Amino acid sequence: MSAAGPEIERLIQLLAKLPGLGPRSARRAALQMLQRREAVMRPLAEALAEAADKITPCSNCGNLDTTDPCAVCRDPRRDESVICVVETVGDLWALERAGAFKGRYHVLGGVLSALDGVGPEDLNVAGLIERAGKGETTEIILALNATVDGQTTAHFLADKLSPAGVEITSLARGVPVGGELDYLDDGTLSAAFRSRRPA
Amino acid sequence: MSAAGPEIERLIQLLAKLPGLGPRSARRAALQMLQRREAVMRPLAEALAEAADKITPCSNCGNLDTTDPCAVCRDPRRDESVICVVETVGDLWALERAGAFKGRYHVLGGVLSALDGVGPEDLNVAGLIERAGKGETTEIILALNATVDGQTTAHFLADKLSPAGVEITSLARGVPVGGELDYLDDGTLSAAFRSRRPA
Repeated sequence: MSAAGPEIERLIQLLAKLPGLGPRSARRAALQMLQRREAVMRPLAEALAEAADKITPCSNCGNLDTTDPCAVCRDPRRDESVICVVETVGDLWALERAGAFKGRYHVLGGVLSALDGVGPEDLNVAGLIERAGKGETTEIILALNATVDGQTTAHFLADKLSPAGVEITSLARGVPVGGELDYLDDGTLSAAFRSRRPA
Repeated sequence: MSAAGPEIERLIQLLAKLPGLGPRSARRAALQMLQRREAVMRPLAEALAEAADKITPCSNCGNLDTTDPCAVCRDPRRDESVICVVETVGDLWALERAGAFKGRYHVLGGVLSALDGVGPEDLNVAGLIERAGKGETTEIILALNATVDGQTTAHFLADKLSPAGVEITSLARGVPVGGELDYLDDGTLSAAFRSRRPA
């Protein structure tokens, strides 16, 4: 039994489901919020309810936004001819934070995985092939994670997309900015050597 | 600029205020919740709103509950004659989880601290003195943290409570369960030696 009462216990249990919060930190978070009710607790309740109501996946690219199509798909300043394929919305956000890309996105919703039983029908592959076949698309960038599953999926997509006759590219491999050679794995070092460029 | 939209950005900012969640894990939490809307996001929104509405500090002991007096103060099976003084509601919860105490509590709401400018008037000291003066109280256990401020506060309270003529005790000092001597600080080891008991 706990002295916290069923309402607080339920709140703690729900908070503990968030990634990065265990039961102990969920309890601390609940307690801190109860002491800062108007500043944190109520605004968070409202923000969560609003997000749950309003935010939907974009029917074009799979991004999450309050509008459909999403802000990225609606932005007329973005290049419609280049589509960057990412695994998750989190990856899309990461690329947007970097500000390196000014085209459109396509969120697959995962990667092919024999182990987890994820096949092409579980991912938004059909939508990508349809977009690739439209006249305006000239390049598709496969920005998938450099994992085994990510690269398997990239090969699969490159194969599926070849009939569309668009250029298919993938992100460069090499030494990350700030990376120290001594700490890099052999695969990255080999890839960086193979793709070496004039200095 | 972020691709996430103002509603999601606001949600992420609010989540990042929780202890244990930084901006990065707040983003991960928001994304995970958007994908588990009915299972996590909406229940959490409701639990937060309900807690913000219903939960109040107990006017007797300072515990947080949906009722005033709280469940601990209302429980007729608990010993009214012993009051355990704690710094925070979190400490009260910790003692309840341990299940070691079956009396009543008194939450001070902090400790005296010259550095942070916390004086006796900022803590619920008056309420404690009043409760100590009532005929039914026979013992007050000062379960404050074993920090400098906690012990300063314990001395202050012992002094203030002496006119009430009740027994004043504090938690035992010693080697924690599972503690290895080699890793314990000198203060704990000395205290454990001074308070040694027949085996």
